[in-house]
Amino acid sequence: MRKLWGGRFDGQPDALIDKLNNSLSFDARLWREDVEGSIAHAAMLGAAGILSETESSEIVAGLKALAAEIENGDTQLPEDAEDVHTAVEGLLRERIGPAAGKLHTARSRNDQVATDIRLYLRRICDSVNEAIHSFQTALADASERELGVLLPGYTHMQHAQPILLSHQLLAYFWMLDRDRERFTDCRGRINRMPLGAGALAGTGFPINRRMTAESLGFDSILPNSLDAVSDRDFAIEFLAAAAILMMHISRLAEEIILWNSPEFGFILLDDSVTTGSSIMPQKKNPDAAELSRGKAGRVYGDLITLLTVMKGLPLAYNKDMQEDKEPLFDAADTLLTVIPAMEKTLATAKFQAKRMEYATKGDFSTATEAADYLARCGLPFREAHEVIGRLVRHCMEHSIGLEELDAGTLLKFSPLLKPDVLPLLSPAAAVEARSSQGGSSSASVREQLILARIRLERK
Amino acid sequence: MRKLWGGRFDGQPDALIDKLNNSLSFDARLWREDVEGSIAHAAMLGAAGILSETESSEIVAGLKALAAEIENGDTQLPEDAEDVHTAVEGLLRERIGPAAGKLHTARSRNDQVATDIRLYLRRICDSVNEAIHSFQTALADASERELGVLLPGYTHMQHAQPILLSHQLLAYFWMLDRDRERFTDCRGRINRMPLGAGALAGTGFPINRRMTAESLGFDSILPNSLDAVSDRDFAIEFLAAAAILMMHISRLAEEIILWNSPEFGFILLDDSVTTGSSIMPQKKNPDAAELSRGKAGRVYGDLITLLTVMKGLPLAYNKDMQEDKEPLFDAADTLLTVIPAMEKTLATAKFQAKRMEYATKGDFSTATEAADYLARCGLPFREAHEVIGRLVRHCMEHSIGLEELDAGTLLKFSPLLKPDVLPLLSPAAAVEARSSQGGSSSASVREQLILARIRLERK
Amino acid sequence: MRKLWGGRFDGQPDALIDKLNNSLSFDARLWREDVEGSIAHAAMLGAAGILSETESSEIVAGLKALAAEIENGDTQLPEDAEDVHTAVEGLLRERIGPAAGKLHTARSRNDQVATDIRLYLRRICDSVNEAIHSFQTALADASERELGVLLPGYTHMQHAQPILLSHQLLAYFWMLDRDRERFTDCRGRINRMPLGAGALAGTGFPINRRMTAESLGFDSILPNSLDAVSDRDFAIEFLAAAAILMMHISRLAEEIILWNSPEFGFILLDDSVTTGSSIMPQKKNPDAAELSRGKAGRVYGDLITLLTVMKGLPLAYNKDMQEDKEPLFDAADTLLTVIPAMEKTLATAKFQAKRMEYATKGDFSTATEAADYLARCGLPFREAHEVIGRLVRHCMEHSIGLEELDAGTLLKFSPLLKPDVLPLLSPAAAVEARSSQGGSSSASVREQLILARIRLERK
Amino acid sequence: MRKLWGGRFDGQPDALIDKLNNSLSFDARLWREDVEGSIAHAAMLGAAGILSETESSEIVAGLKALAAEIENGDTQLPEDAEDVHTAVEGLLRERIGPAAGKLHTARSRNDQVATDIRLYLRRICDSVNEAIHSFQTALADASERELGVLLPGYTHMQHAQPILLSHQLLAYFWMLDRDRERFTDCRGRINRMPLGAGALAGTGFPINRRMTAESLGFDSILPNSLDAVSDRDFAIEFLAAAAILMMHISRLAEEIILWNSPEFGFILLDDSVTTGSSIMPQKKNPDAAELSRGKAGRVYGDLITLLTVMKGLPLAYNKDMQEDKEPLFDAADTLLTVIPAMEKTLATAKFQAKRMEYATKGDFSTATEAADYLARCGLPFREAHEVIGRLVRHCMEHSIGLEELDAGTLLKFSPLLKPDVLPLLSPAAAVEARSSQGGSSSASVREQLILARIRLERK
Repeated sequence: MRKLWGGRFDGQPDALIDKLNNSLSFDARLWREDVEGSIAHAAMLGAAGILSETESSEIVAGLKALAAEIENGDTQLPEDAEDVHTAVEGLLRERIGPAAGKLHTARSRNDQVATDIRLYLRRICDSVNEAIHSFQTALADASERELGVLLPGYTHMQHAQPILLSHQLLAYFWMLDRDRERFTDCRGRINRMPLGAGALAGTGFPINRRMTAESLGFDSILPNSLDAVSDRDFAIEFLAAAAILMMHISRLAEEIILWNSPEFGFILLDDSVTTGSSIMPQKKNPDAAELSRGKAGRVYGDLITLLTVMKGLPLAYNKDMQEDKEPLFDAADTLLTVIPAMEKTLATAKFQAKRMEYATKGDFSTATEAADYLARCGLPFREAHEVIGRLVRHCMEHSIGLEELDAGTLLKFSPLLKPDVLPLLSPAAAVEARSSQGGSSSASVREQLILARIRLERK
Repeated sequence: MRKLWGGRFDGQPDALIDKLNNSLSFDARLWREDVEGSIAHAAMLGAAGILSETESSEIVAGLKALAAEIENGDTQLPEDAEDVHTAVEGLLRERIGPAAGKLHTARSRNDQVATDIRLYLRRICDSVNEAIHSFQTALADASERELGVLLPGYTHMQHAQPILLSHQLLAYFWMLDRDRERFTDCRGRINRMPLGAGALAGTGFPINRRMTAESLGFDSILPNSLDAVSDRDFAIEFLAAAAILMMHISRLAEEIILWNSPEFGFILLDDSVTTGSSIMPQKKNPDAAELSRGKAGRVYGDLITLLTVMKGLPLAYNKDMQEDKEPLFDAADTLLTVIPAMEKTLATAKFQAKRMEYATKGDFSTATEAADYLARCGLPFREAHEVIGRLVRHCMEHSIGLEELDAGTLLKFSPLLKPDVLPLLSPAAAVEARSSQGGSSSASVREQLILARIRLERK
Repeated sequence: MRKLWGGRFDGQPDALIDKLNNSLSFDARLWREDVEGSIAHAAMLGAAGILSETESSEIVAGLKALAAEIENGDTQLPEDAEDVHTAVEGLLRERIGPAAGKLHTARSRNDQVATDIRLYLRRICDSVNEAIHSFQTALADASERELGVLLPGYTHMQHAQPILLSHQLLAYFWMLDRDRERFTDCRGRINRMPLGAGALAGTGFPINRRMTAESLGFDSILPNSLDAVSDRDFAIEFLAAAAILMMHISRLAEEIILWNSPEFGFILLDDSVTTGSSIMPQKKNPDAAELSRGKAGRVYGDLITLLTVMKGLPLAYNKDMQEDKEPLFDAADTLLTVIPAMEKTLATAKFQAKRMEYATKGDFSTATEAADYLARCGLPFREAHEVIGRLVRHCMEHSIGLEELDAGTLLKFSPLLKPDVLPLLSPAAAVEARSSQGGSSSASVREQLILARIRLERK
Repeated sequence: MRKLWGGRFDGQPDALIDKLNNSLSFDARLWREDVEGSIAHAAMLGAAGILSETESSEIVAGLKALAAEIENGDTQLPEDAEDVHTAVEGLLRERIGPAAGKLHTARSRNDQVATDIRLYLRRICDSVNEAIHSFQTALADASERELGVLLPGYTHMQHAQPILLSHQLLAYFWMLDRDRERFTDCRGRINRMPLGAGALAGTGFPINRRMTAESLGFDSILPNSLDAVSDRDFAIEFLAAAAILMMHISRLAEEIILWNSPEFGFILLDDSVTTGSSIMPQKKNPDAAELSRGKAGRVYGDLITLLTVMKGLPLAYNKDMQEDKEPLFDAADTLLTVIPAMEKTLATAKFQAKRMEYATKGDFSTATEAADYLARCGLPFREAHEVIGRLVRHCMEHSIGLEELDAGTLLKFSPLLKPDVLPLLSPAAAVEARSSQGGSSSASVREQLILARIRLERK
């Protein structure tokens, strides 16, 4: 297909260089955004009197017809086009003739591609936030359903204090909620229009940027044409938000993988989210969780890719910036696969309540209760901590749980340790004791669930 | 100094391991935040009746006195302490005796350190935004001062279209403006209180989190104790915002370095921001700009560091998370050095207006004007582009500028190319022609400056 | 297509999860290596008596026929297969019936895929080294051709000392030479055979690993089955070598882009490696160089991707490791496009010798010569540096070059500055003066070229 | 302290910019290398007749005396010096007077600093390799000591096949062995001398690079002066090797952390490598392993830092490159802390053999044995896999282990499943059956240990 810029050139591009330059193999997927932007641009050109009404209408109609054909699969983008913009304009020319050449009036591929990417990322932000919202709902539902189930709370992979499963699930709810906030903030910065910036310096045609902005649903207009065509901070911000989300996902995935191990046995995954082994007939592998964890890597990589591309580039547009699209597409595809996969994994999982609760026994994870008891008796907490530390060591040496101690032994460690401390040392009592705001007690968790439901209403 | 946890331990930590574990060498710089958080916590413990009023007052007074001493340099943190929390509590104990041990009631180092970091980062966000604001002001001032100066606008490092220097400077204004937005958004997510989350599960003491939140100036309370102690997404978001800012800085630095080269000669840097060579007596190197460009590397690295640390960590707190502080400190220090250094570099620079304007001559950068002229005559832009492409080639072969063409030659390329196109081909006319919103004309840039000043009012 | 592991499963994989799991869309390109490895394995199974000679021959023949069909395009891998291994085995089964099922005896997909990747990367290392070798040859040729051309040598983007263009070109020769060494070292660690490690623990069948290693051209056998299937350090090492190479490429690309700017004008790029603008008819953009510079980003990203994937994974194989292939493919494709593109760009470029030499005039870049002259007269170099520093300032204030000074002025700055210093201050003399080993004189560069040619003989 | 370059400068450096520029705060630690390089340089200047014998001897003696003083702590580097080179030269001047100024003859800070870093990294490579060697020895020793202990081999965190603990420990031995190879290869590329390259273009003084190279122990001389001062590929290669090593460490650390959890209980860590909690008296946290895992993050970050710094830098030296030192120091310090910490952690750990062996019971991890049995009977492996898959499901539904099946049941699943399969299904038998080279049988592991000991002899 003919290049959009042959006039001053003598030699033909080298085949290898052509392959290097051409972006259609990946930017083809922006065709919808490209057509959408062109329709708005053409309509504006007509309204502003830069093109005649007839020309403008003809172009708009041609573009609409073309979009329908591509959507239906009746038309394909020509494979030999340099990029999606050239491809679309070429197809338009086939349909409406040389008038197609007027579409590029008062526009450059520099502002065009920046517009396309922003339209694309705006849509992706919305889709990602829907996926997160759905996942959050599943977490809130599971949390509500499982209220009452105890499990060990861990720090350093050691039993720390018993907690409610619902509390643990809601921890992820809030991480995801902040992810949603980040994509929303990012969307705000994405949704500013570069169109009208031309190649770098605006245009001499009397364009009406407000009109195109409105018809394309942009919140505002980028106020500097150089900046509009040459920055990609919004795309990096998107990738950073994606990387943080994947970090959260990788943590949840890690927990699912651990819980699914025979040693933990806290969760039974559905066959639909696991796979087997080509050699070991007994295996049932938590592939969805493992891949989700692993895919954090590619999104981290995407982020570094674009940060590196943009480092040290002078203004305005440089061809290096063509490298912005693949990491964005990769990250978007990853998020929109991984989030529902994790939702599916969790929503179909069976939590093994008995196994979880059993794990809270005899693990000394209520030792803090005993220390707090002493602190309430007036002992400075540091001293209380020491006393209970020695008590734990005693129990370990005698292979008994804290809850199995007798009154006599208690007194040997501190005169303040009365038998009424013993009921406090059961995991259930310990959980319920921690009734501070945001704490692990049933009441606290129920309050938290209400807050969570309120957040979900804010789509 | 005594560890805060010895009770159940037999062996002594190995010296090497101790060195690995101890964080005082870097977290010492959180002492202000640590004391501030402890004062609020102690006051609340008193108000809530968890400590007696006397105990509470004694602790608060002790902490205030201690803070004053450290500030004055009268007291140093003990070097052998495990971390800043242990150090501060140890010094408090020296002053008020065992009552100091009551400060840790209803608190863990896990929620304490999360609180410290958030207080620290909140302050850093404010400082960074002040530094950006000051730099933006300098850019707006320079832009206003230099109004009227032409220079080539570049794409692909090639002369593309002439623009105003003010326009180019303002491009950076807007990049920085979005950076400021990002730090503001991030600050909103930083300013949520983890204190009261305990080790991971809240506490059984009747704490009043609202009270501590208010006295520490937090906007809200983190609603899940596990999440509160175990996530660092806010810190990664800070690093991502920092990396994006450094990306912008690296671009501006690159331009300054290029402009400062003899080939460009667009800028004369002040002696105060350059250095010489130990061997070449004639050198005057743009070190501040080079180092600012290079330091993008360390902030990118800081971001990857924390993303990697958090990848795949199960809940709740893990010791890996101690690695969060050094990248944050490094990024904060870098921003607060680099932003003013770049401001200083630009504010003291002398733009070489004549050299810039000279560079816009004979560079064919007004060819788009000629194509637009043809488009306005009704020729589809694509064809106009081809015609002018051939015209440019003709000029190159004859070593003349577009503005030097005569009427006869013009007509040979297209009957539409009347002599009235010639005045449009001067750089100044071309700049002024691009009067679209956000474009390069003086009028557009003046409008842009008004928008910029409005943004600056929003601190 | 039927999974290789259905026996113990009840439910069907979810469509979304299936899409997440399946790797055929990217690992299909390993089909050659997969078939190659399977042929060696089947032959060994026959020779070791694990399969009958007939079974073994039948499988080997079937695989060879299949490979020929795929190569010719007569057969396609079934799109619904889980991965390339399943696809190949399925096609084999269609051809030779259930005997195909015997191919997987004493093998797992874990050692199979590790073998495939190593065979693939071994080939890529060879291709990359050939591409580098060819590029090095082009650099040496250009260096030889351009001997005698002067240009400014830069530090800090400032003229530092005049050098020979050949010297600058050879600097890249040596960078690439070390890149070649790195790929060679890496190839040595790639070329160790995992096959025979089974799923993780070896096999009970009396396999002969030495035989398969020999027939596949592996240098040695990995001595630990767990390690063999679960490490990917060799792949990360490949990506690190690729990232370092791209760093070098990005530097050369940056120089080409700068040299191609009107301000420098040091190089004229061939039409075949440049493109035009859709809006600015005069543009001729150094796209190949820009994209090569930008593509450093994706390879840096690929490296971070795999480093992140592998971080913290317990032994042995985890599904996360399926994420190893795409970054490898991406980096390999990038190198094999970018290296020849850069070679083409340089080999077809016309260096603008006059412009380069002109740039060395009046730039004070021979000031070091003057300082060295004083040092040779016995003045400590530090003092000589100061004297010449003041002399340079004097010239700047009077807008003259060092070479334009008269004897009287010289003496005012130091009695040691005799007129015989003047001839030393011409760029050509300064270049020739630096005749130390590895220096910029023609003689030094000629010696260097001999060393370069010797390196090229070592393929 | 006086700068080494003031001659042509008027203004004073700004305090902020000075802080930005000065590198003494971190490069001070290169003082030994700086003095070492200067001694070799001064001796050569004397031998080559560039300085008089007296001058040369005086400088050498002065530097040696100075080094002794700094080593003893009698002298400190002046804090206000710009960098370590300036500091050392300044101190030398204080001792021997203006003759010190002659040391910088035929040398620039550009080749000097490149020499210093290479000398430093060469030493670090040796230290790292010693630390790895020691750790490998500890792994081989533990592997020998624990021969006979069974544990489940995992894939996807699921029990896959039983293995020997020794086998698992040796897996890490081989990873570390390749790390050692990488540092050795890297050391080879580090140990090439830049000294004599001057600022960028060599020198006009008749220096003898061979002599300095020999006295400094360099293997060879870098053949291009521009390349010598302006590349840092060797430093990035070092960081890449460090990142890969940390990846390995993070995996081992993850396993130790998991094994130390109550759910696994496979390991008992020594008190000396663990810490307690400030609030939970029962905790014993595997801090050394957690921090080692987390520190992978900082080394990944260091790698990205330097890759980013070097991206797109034109030749030759740019001030950005001053940013090379801190990531190198950070990575070096990290490796030299983490490797011995991990060795200590493992060497003092008590493996819980009973718990490990118990975990291999009833986990179906010998199912592959049963499938292999059928394959040996002539059933294609794929069919065998299906049969055993159904058998495993049967066992699960009846909550029995494979080893508890009776002959009748076996026959129902396949007529080939004779009772003689049963003894093969015990974990110990399964382990011993996998006697292939590199497999899990005791004999295979003993052979592997011999190979390991041979590798250790090659220091």
